[in-house]
Amino acid sequence: VSAVISAEDRGFTLGDGVFDTALALNGRMFAHERHVGRLLDAAQTLGIAVDRRRIEDALDAALTTAPTILRTTLTRGVAARGLWPASVGEPTVLVTTSPWSPALLGQAARLVTATGRRNEFSPTANLKTLNYLDHILAAREAAAAGVDDALILNTQGRVACTTIANVFALIDGTLVTPPLSEGCLPGIIRALVIEMAPALGFKVEERPLLPETLAGADAMFLTNSVRFLRPVTALDGRELAGHPATNQLVTALKARLAAECGTPSTLI
Amino acid sequence: VSAVISAEDRGFTLGDGVFDTALALNGRMFAHERHVGRLLDAAQTLGIAVDRRRIEDALDAALTTAPTILRTTLTRGVAARGLWPASVGEPTVLVTTSPWSPALLGQAARLVTATGRRNEFSPTANLKTLNYLDHILAAREAAAAGVDDALILNTQGRVACTTIANVFALIDGTLVTPPLSEGCLPGIIRALVIEMAPALGFKVEERPLLPETLAGADAMFLTNSVRFLRPVTALDGRELAGHPATNQLVTALKARLAAECGTPSTLI
Repeated sequence: VSAVISAEDRGFTLGDGVFDTALALNGRMFAHERHVGRLLDAAQTLGIAVDRRRIEDALDAALTTAPTILRTTLTRGVAARGLWPASVGEPTVLVTTSPWSPALLGQAARLVTATGRRNEFSPTANLKTLNYLDHILAAREAAAAGVDDALILNTQGRVACTTIANVFALIDGTLVTPPLSEGCLPGIIRALVIEMAPALGFKVEERPLLPETLAGADAMFLTNSVRFLRPVTALDGRELAGHPATNQLVTALKARLAAECGTPSTLI
Repeated sequence: VSAVISAEDRGFTLGDGVFDTALALNGRMFAHERHVGRLLDAAQTLGIAVDRRRIEDALDAALTTAPTILRTTLTRGVAARGLWPASVGEPTVLVTTSPWSPALLGQAARLVTATGRRNEFSPTANLKTLNYLDHILAAREAAAAGVDDALILNTQGRVACTTIANVFALIDGTLVTPPLSEGCLPGIIRALVIEMAPALGFKVEERPLLPETLAGADAMFLTNSVRFLRPVTALDGRELAGHPATNQLVTALKARLAAECGTPSTLI
C-alpha cells in the first residue's frame, strides 16, 4: 500500500506499460498461466524485455490465503525524457493486492453507451495497457448516469467492450462476442467462456456486433476477471431480459474457480 | 531526479492525468500563461480539481537561470483500485526539469509514417494526457527506420500529428495545418505560428490534410515546445524540398523567445 515508484518511471510519465488483474484464493492464482502469458505477450509486443521469473516472484510474494485481487503492473522502467530514449533501466514489476469478495461474482450491471470511441486501429487495441484515460471518462459517464458501466463502441460504431469488460450477446441460441479486430482486449474470462460454452450447449461466434443487434438479443452479459460474468439488465435506460444461460455460465465459471483454487466458505 | 510517487497514484496505475512541456530561460517560462492555461483546461475536462496556485508554486520552485525544459505532470491523485472510485486524494502536481539547448531550435527532421492510427473520436484526442503508448510505438518505428519522428494519421487516414509535434504544410503560399477535430493536440507553438504567420506574409488555414497533399506541398514542418519548428527533409524515404518560409518562422519564434525570456549567449 505504501509502495512508491520513481517519478521518472515511464509508467508514470508516459503510460509506457501494461497490467493484469487476476483473482487469488487460498494462495492460488486463478488462470495463472493465461494471465502471466498474456502479460508476457504484451511485453514482447511493446519491446519490454522482462524475465518471467521476476513476475512469478512478485506474484508469489503477494499471495496470501485471503481472497485477493492481484494487480501486476509492468512498465518499461526509469528513463530520461523522450519517447524513445537511447537507454532505459530495468523494467518495473509491481504486484499490489486488494481484498476480493465472492459476492462480486455474477452481479448484474446496468449500462449506458459512452460518447467516446475506442480505436481498433491502435497498435495497442488488444493490450491491457496503462492508458486507461478514455475508459475512465466513460466510467465517469456511467457514474453520472447512475449505472454500473459504459458500453464502448469502436470508431466504426460497432461494439468493442465496456470500460472494464468484454461483451457477449445471446442471439438465437448463439453466444456472439466481437473479435479482437474490433478493438477489444483478449479477456481471460472471455476466452474461458468461448471454450466452455459448447459443452453447455451453446454455439459461440466471434463476429462484429452492432448496437442495434445488442438491443434485439435474447440476453447480454459482460466478462472480466474480477466479476467473471455480469448479466446486463439495462442499456441506455431500456430494460433487457434475463436468460438462464447467464446463470449456467456463472455456475460453470465458479466451478472452474473452485477446481483450480478451492472454495472460500462464502463461495457456494 | 530522485522524486518518487505513490504506486497507487492514478497517473501510474491508469494514466489518469495530463502533462505539459515548456521551455525556461533566465528563470522565465516561455508562453507561461498559455501553458498553464492549457493544463488547467485539460484538468477541467478530466474533472481533476486542482488549484492553479499549486501549479504556479511547483513551477516557481523548479525555475533556475539555466536553459531548462520544464515538465509539469498533473494526475488525479492516489486512490483505491477501480476506474471511477468513490474517493480520490488530492491531485498530484510534479514539475521535473531537464537541460535544454538552443541548438535544438530549428533542427531538421526525417519522418516515416507510423502504422497505427490516432483516434480523433477519443474524448482525449485534444489533451496532452499521460497515455503516450501509441506514440511511443510510433517513435520506435521511427527509430527502427533510422529517422527522427513518425507521422501519425487519424482513423480516416488523414494527417493528425507526429509523435511529439504538430504538422504544417506550405501549399501555394498558404500554411495549412489540421484542425483540432482531426485529433491533434492544441500545441502552443502551433497556436503561435497561426497567430504570427499573417504578419510574415502567409495565409493560414486549419483544414484536413491528406498524406498525398503533404507529398505535393512546397514545404512541410513540425512544431512543438522544445524545438519550436523543424523543417521536414524526408517523408517515407522521399526527400522534401526546403523553403525560406521555415527559416523566417524559426527566426520569428526565436525573437519571441528572446523578447519573453531574454537570450542565452548561444541563442543568436
